[in-house]
Amino acid sequence: MAKELTPRSENYSQWYNDLVVKADLAENSAVRGCMVIKPYGYAIWEKMQAELDRMFKETGHVNAYFPLFIPKSFLSKEADHVEGFAKECAVVTHYRLKTSPDGKGVVVDPEAKLEEELIVRPTSETIIWNTYKNWIQSYRDLPILCNQWANVVRWEMRTRLFLRTAEFLWQEGHTAHETYEEAEVETKKMLNVYADFAENFMAMPVIKGVKSASERFAGAVDTYTIEALMQDGKALQSGTSHFLGQNFAKAFDVTFMTRDTKVDYVWATSWGVSTRLMGALIMSHSDDNGLVLPPKLAPFQVVIVPIFKGADQLAQISEKVCEIVAKLKAAGISVKYDDSDTKKPGWKFAEYELKGVPVRLAMGGRDLENNTVEVARRDTLTKETVSIDNIDVYIKNLLDDIQATIFQKALDYRKEHTITVDSYDEFKEKIEDGGFILAHWDGTPETEAKIKEETKATIRCIPFEGDKTQGKCMVTGKLSAQRVLFARSY
Amino acid sequence: MAKELTPRSENYSQWYNDLVVKADLAENSAVRGCMVIKPYGYAIWEKMQAELDRMFKETGHVNAYFPLFIPKSFLSKEADHVEGFAKECAVVTHYRLKTSPDGKGVVVDPEAKLEEELIVRPTSETIIWNTYKNWIQSYRDLPILCNQWANVVRWEMRTRLFLRTAEFLWQEGHTAHETYEEAEVETKKMLNVYADFAENFMAMPVIKGVKSASERFAGAVDTYTIEALMQDGKALQSGTSHFLGQNFAKAFDVTFMTRDTKVDYVWATSWGVSTRLMGALIMSHSDDNGLVLPPKLAPFQVVIVPIFKGADQLAQISEKVCEIVAKLKAAGISVKYDDSDTKKPGWKFAEYELKGVPVRLAMGGRDLENNTVEVARRDTLTKETVSIDNIDVYIKNLLDDIQATIFQKALDYRKEHTITVDSYDEFKEKIEDGGFILAHWDGTPETEAKIKEETKATIRCIPFEGDKTQGKCMVTGKLSAQRVLFARSY
Repeated sequence: MAKELTPRSENYSQWYNDLVVKADLAENSAVRGCMVIKPYGYAIWEKMQAELDRMFKETGHVNAYFPLFIPKSFLSKEADHVEGFAKECAVVTHYRLKTSPDGKGVVVDPEAKLEEELIVRPTSETIIWNTYKNWIQSYRDLPILCNQWANVVRWEMRTRLFLRTAEFLWQEGHTAHETYEEAEVETKKMLNVYADFAENFMAMPVIKGVKSASERFAGAVDTYTIEALMQDGKALQSGTSHFLGQNFAKAFDVTFMTRDTKVDYVWATSWGVSTRLMGALIMSHSDDNGLVLPPKLAPFQVVIVPIFKGADQLAQISEKVCEIVAKLKAAGISVKYDDSDTKKPGWKFAEYELKGVPVRLAMGGRDLENNTVEVARRDTLTKETVSIDNIDVYIKNLLDDIQATIFQKALDYRKEHTITVDSYDEFKEKIEDGGFILAHWDGTPETEAKIKEETKATIRCIPFEGDKTQGKCMVTGKLSAQRVLFARSY
Repeated sequence: MAKELTPRSENYSQWYNDLVVKADLAENSAVRGCMVIKPYGYAIWEKMQAELDRMFKETGHVNAYFPLFIPKSFLSKEADHVEGFAKECAVVTHYRLKTSPDGKGVVVDPEAKLEEELIVRPTSETIIWNTYKNWIQSYRDLPILCNQWANVVRWEMRTRLFLRTAEFLWQEGHTAHETYEEAEVETKKMLNVYADFAENFMAMPVIKGVKSASERFAGAVDTYTIEALMQDGKALQSGTSHFLGQNFAKAFDVTFMTRDTKVDYVWATSWGVSTRLMGALIMSHSDDNGLVLPPKLAPFQVVIVPIFKGADQLAQISEKVCEIVAKLKAAGISVKYDDSDTKKPGWKFAEYELKGVPVRLAMGGRDLENNTVEVARRDTLTKETVSIDNIDVYIKNLLDDIQATIFQKALDYRKEHTITVDSYDEFKEKIEDGGFILAHWDGTPETEAKIKEETKATIRCIPFEGDKTQGKCMVTGKLSAQRVLFARSY
């Protein structure tokens, strides 16, 4: 097989890069840190977008679009926010090029300097709250429940395809509310939407919780997160939902007349997931043969490969396949028939394994005689020969089973790699094995920083669910309200 | 009515701006030339996107995503291209801000200067052809049929909501082919897709043709266009499809092994439509009462308004409306029931008229007794009372009729405002009335420039269809191959 991957056991990081490139998901571009999302990768992203968009709309949200550029002065209006984003942003300073003096190429025209520099949005709270100011006068204008699908830019120094890129695609929800309570409910509601999506579509189990102060979004009062565990034992923050309090309303002076005719600042939330989810999806399920995709997000769920000698037999097989395709499509299953004669079946098998197509059907001469087809499932790599009668029902059940199986496998992996630790010495030893560690922490940023410094592990979240028993901090012995979730992370 | 529009007859341009803002379609942002697309406007754009995306996929195209930024040197590689775009582009020169010396706000960090400036894409031929270079070795790698949905930036000095903005949303298709002929066929195919979309979804008749050399896309061998006529007699270029020849392949050295094992440059096309279509849609059908939307693109096709006294009657009406809503939804019709009690029916009527909802149903006490509902159509502003039995079939037919009627109305308007002129004196007189003028032209850029200079009219296209008779140029008397289409334009 031409497209062999580095095995995970040998070099997990190289395996990931190999897979992303060889499965035609994405590649690096000529622009430092910016990726090209290739058609097959983009098709998966489109599936994710479609499901998320539906879920947002079902929870009452509408889409809108706000400018790519943010005036520099806007960033400074919220103190924590500028602190968090100023160090890594793309700055537009000019609006014209001109022919260079030597006549070769173009140079920036110094006369076309902007009065105020523009920042390419790293996130849109500032430009959106500056806009909301004009949309909100009274409680009758609330809530505002907007989402936008957009590209954003954060000038990361070390980038990795999907996981950390200078430009990435995402959605950002920005909502405005009358009360603290309503904004709080919204923040949690959207975290639950993300968790639902991660578990039921990506087949990726997640732990919901709240971030410690030092890991909060710049400008948030609280950041809620879903955390997933990758196959190499590292955590991946997969989605965040921020309770912004009145911080941005105060920064942009957005007030409203309340029901009891007082004036108050508006309450805010924001929430987002990005193309980073592609990295999470890849690392949750795939193996040394390539991608393993959950049926609900696969660009096509079934591929059919004919095994034939000569045009006559291909014609006979194709006629039969045509029936199968029609049946599957009628059952809402997406299917591709690859009857190209420039590649051999073995090459095709490897290629679709690499691309993670959940189910592969192969049909040869004997199948034709017996009215059967060979069914191979990608997740377990098992095969069986089944009758073509009721193939639609069979495949539908199989796809459901694959979706459930890969979720369970990921859940089992996480269970096996989640441990409870009580002493810091044990923590330092166990963290080397990867996985989640539940341990007690005294709640101070100092202890958190010490642990990070000494072990490279961070507090992924203070989990909402699970054991809430008090205890003693593994480092300082001080009181701890509950165990928190530690891991090394992406 | 609070949201009165400036009448078209008084000031067409002001009417347009009033309508865009008051119907909640878009507004200007704090960033010069960049708009905020508001939820109702974005919902229409999403409908457009969904239909276009379906049509692209049905014609074999796939979506992908390429970087927002283009290295400055890339722009210079195709001579005409840089000439066309260098004068109006946003330039990123730095990648970090720092706290200003006075501690107030942030300034650009001079130490974070990029080695090579990055241009925010005004269009993506250069970055895409630089990418395609690595994707193409042999004819077996062709064709490549990619599209991307993206934002682009062109630093326009005079901007108007949707029609001309610094940042706009669009799709850009970029295809690569083995032969001249195949690329030519693709260019025309996509122009036909655009014309199909314009006429059958936007209900906007268009004239297909080829641009004169001076109006070509920067870097194209030929630019095909669809041209529509707005209600003020000005033309609006609504979509373009470019045959790029081998220009970009040569600029980026993209060669391939042909079927007869020779080496040749790859043939290219590109094609795009943008949020400018929103402007075209608005100006094609709307009137002094507000938007008129074609049913196929309306965010909701039917709105139902209850006319009631007291909660008891509202409950009775709502029960009946509930049945109607279920029936309509089952028939694939999108419907909104506005039972809010903070606004009066009259206010609601005006509001939904402003927003162009194709059909309004009103139900009051008498309707309840008679099992009827009042049906008002937005395009003609006519009303009738109909039975609730078979309301689904009735509304379905009505929506089809509205779609057909507004197309026919726009087509009639265009017919009435398209004239044939033979003398330049008559041309100069008639162009003042607006509309399309078919006239003979000698094919030279000098004559074209003279006409533009003296009359502000441009050649919109050399039409593919219609009269192909030779004649004499209205300005120079020289031979003309066929009449060409002139107009003043947006």
